[in-house]
Amino acid sequence: MQFRTVDWIPEQSTRLVPGSVRMIDQTRLPNEVIYLNLHKPEEMWKAIKTLQVRGAPAIGVAAAMGVVAAVQSCAVKTGSALVTEVDRIADYLATSRPTAVNLFWALNRMKEIARTHAHLPPHDLLLRLAEEALTIRDEDIAMCRAIGDHGAGLLSDGQSILTHCNAGGLATSQFGTALAPVYVAREKGMRIHVFADETRPLLQGARLTAWELTQAGIDVTVICDNMAGQVMKEGKVQAVFVGADRIAANGDAANKIGTYGVAILAHYHHIPFYVLAPTSTFDLSMNTGDEIPIEERDSHEITRGFGKTTAPEGVKTYNPAFDVTPAELITGIICEHGIARPDYRENLARLATCSTAPANVRRR
Amino acid sequence: MQFRTVDWIPEQSTRLVPGSVRMIDQTRLPNEVIYLNLHKPEEMWKAIKTLQVRGAPAIGVAAAMGVVAAVQSCAVKTGSALVTEVDRIADYLATSRPTAVNLFWALNRMKEIARTHAHLPPHDLLLRLAEEALTIRDEDIAMCRAIGDHGAGLLSDGQSILTHCNAGGLATSQFGTALAPVYVAREKGMRIHVFADETRPLLQGARLTAWELTQAGIDVTVICDNMAGQVMKEGKVQAVFVGADRIAANGDAANKIGTYGVAILAHYHHIPFYVLAPTSTFDLSMNTGDEIPIEERDSHEITRGFGKTTAPEGVKTYNPAFDVTPAELITGIICEHGIARPDYRENLARLATCSTAPANVRRR
Repeated sequence: MQFRTVDWIPEQSTRLVPGSVRMIDQTRLPNEVIYLNLHKPEEMWKAIKTLQVRGAPAIGVAAAMGVVAAVQSCAVKTGSALVTEVDRIADYLATSRPTAVNLFWALNRMKEIARTHAHLPPHDLLLRLAEEALTIRDEDIAMCRAIGDHGAGLLSDGQSILTHCNAGGLATSQFGTALAPVYVAREKGMRIHVFADETRPLLQGARLTAWELTQAGIDVTVICDNMAGQVMKEGKVQAVFVGADRIAANGDAANKIGTYGVAILAHYHHIPFYVLAPTSTFDLSMNTGDEIPIEERDSHEITRGFGKTTAPEGVKTYNPAFDVTPAELITGIICEHGIARPDYRENLARLATCSTAPANVRRR
Repeated sequence: MQFRTVDWIPEQSTRLVPGSVRMIDQTRLPNEVIYLNLHKPEEMWKAIKTLQVRGAPAIGVAAAMGVVAAVQSCAVKTGSALVTEVDRIADYLATSRPTAVNLFWALNRMKEIARTHAHLPPHDLLLRLAEEALTIRDEDIAMCRAIGDHGAGLLSDGQSILTHCNAGGLATSQFGTALAPVYVAREKGMRIHVFADETRPLLQGARLTAWELTQAGIDVTVICDNMAGQVMKEGKVQAVFVGADRIAANGDAANKIGTYGVAILAHYHHIPFYVLAPTSTFDLSMNTGDEIPIEERDSHEITRGFGKTTAPEGVKTYNPAFDVTPAELITGIICEHGIARPDYRENLARLATCSTAPANVRRR
């Protein structure tokens, strides 16, 4: 990858702390590539809230690093005083986006590490916190790589996939989930072409997926969402790869609005439809996708999406941010531990309990 | 209707000519309602070319009136000299949009009327031309009304339909095709709700369909194209009504890009899918829709559609302007003479040869 979505930059090369969080401002893409250097918790809170950083795994990594950046300059005398600070900052950052499950998961890991090492002097505890944040990042990179390895095995040289929204490197620390197989295939010398749905209303496909694939020199074609059916009819697509925000025990998968429609189109055209997401996305406490709440977002995303009013003043809109693709439309679910195929209830549960050493646990 | 898409405005209320063509500038909707008053052929040519007037029936009416406006001030001494002028203007206007079949059809009618009455003094011939242009408009209004009557019979009070693009009053002289049943149902006191796909890339649904329904006080909800599947899944839609640009002998129907995808979604959800278009749209010389050419349009419609660059500079796009919905996904084709159902090859041919008295020729 030519870029790092989120990274930790130490002030001095010989010491991990103090440092700052460096991230691409995704709201400025694709027109401007601007890196932010964040120190203060308020800056990180705003970055998550306003989607300067987005994608569940990337948000988790950013928040963990944000805790380190925030507490590194605390003038505390004891480890337990630093633990109190970590709790305070983590609880604050957790209010930035209440639906992103990886955010809480990463912040809880930071709180736990702090408690475990509360007996250490503040500086040593700070080092443990920085190491934990980097571990979260490294696990994320390994997870993406493993998903990429499993998914690349489904691709052949010269094929085209279609994807929706952005589940690429910009949504994670590196490589992404849905796009990881394309990057891995590329490393193996395969030429894979990608059709990117622009993904209204916020255009993550046109802005982000097209940008990161272009950066990597991967052949990408942007289409409007309503052109996916025609592209499939013309035989231009051999598989659909999408990410997921939450996957229920029966395999129903919530993802960006429009994913469900793409799944129906793929089904009609007999094109395999794969969901690619880490096991941290599995929510086996949910029996089916019917239990997954669908967030509805502001109507201005539809009526004034691009700084220009494109619908009559005051017109009603319906703007669900996600939809749920039923398991029967999903050919396979690819996670860091392998590829689950139906029956999902049995196979997702099995993969979810795998060890965290993805490279050694490939199941097909 | 609160507005007239295209109309002829005489300078004096007692005389049909001289006059001018009055039309809503559709490129300014929904933000500004601006009426153009056109006299010169260059103005009409530009209005058609730049989509200030659009929709095949509306273009035909506008062009016919444009011929009258252009030749009314000719200082000719004989009817045959005026015929030469009509031919010249009509041939010029025909170059404005080479794909709109109603444009040639309307201009040819004007040329024919001119030739038939070439023996008349110029002023009397001019009157015949003006009357013919108004006849084309009145036939268009009657056609829409008849389609509306047939389609309204399929609706019940309180139902919702979904439509794609704009096949409403703004695409015709009045009422439209796909939206005509909604207007007729409204006259009968029924409350019909409409979901309008925004219809990327040019947003005719959000800009035009939402505007004209709002003007008429009809309940409309704008959604992004990729939300249609979710709306259907939630049981919010009881039928899909769309227009058509060309219908082949077997019932395959070409329409705005994305219509094919909507048809597949409707099929999956067991929702009836109707195509509404006049018999002038039937092209029985084409055996199937495979013969219908698909125009590809400029990539800037996708990458700079909202006055702002929304994709990386130079990225590839695919921008087909139309797609073809296969007959097997179409529940019925509603024209001014009735509703055709499968087998379309037989039933379209029968309706195409009906008399032009739509109100008397209802077939169900």
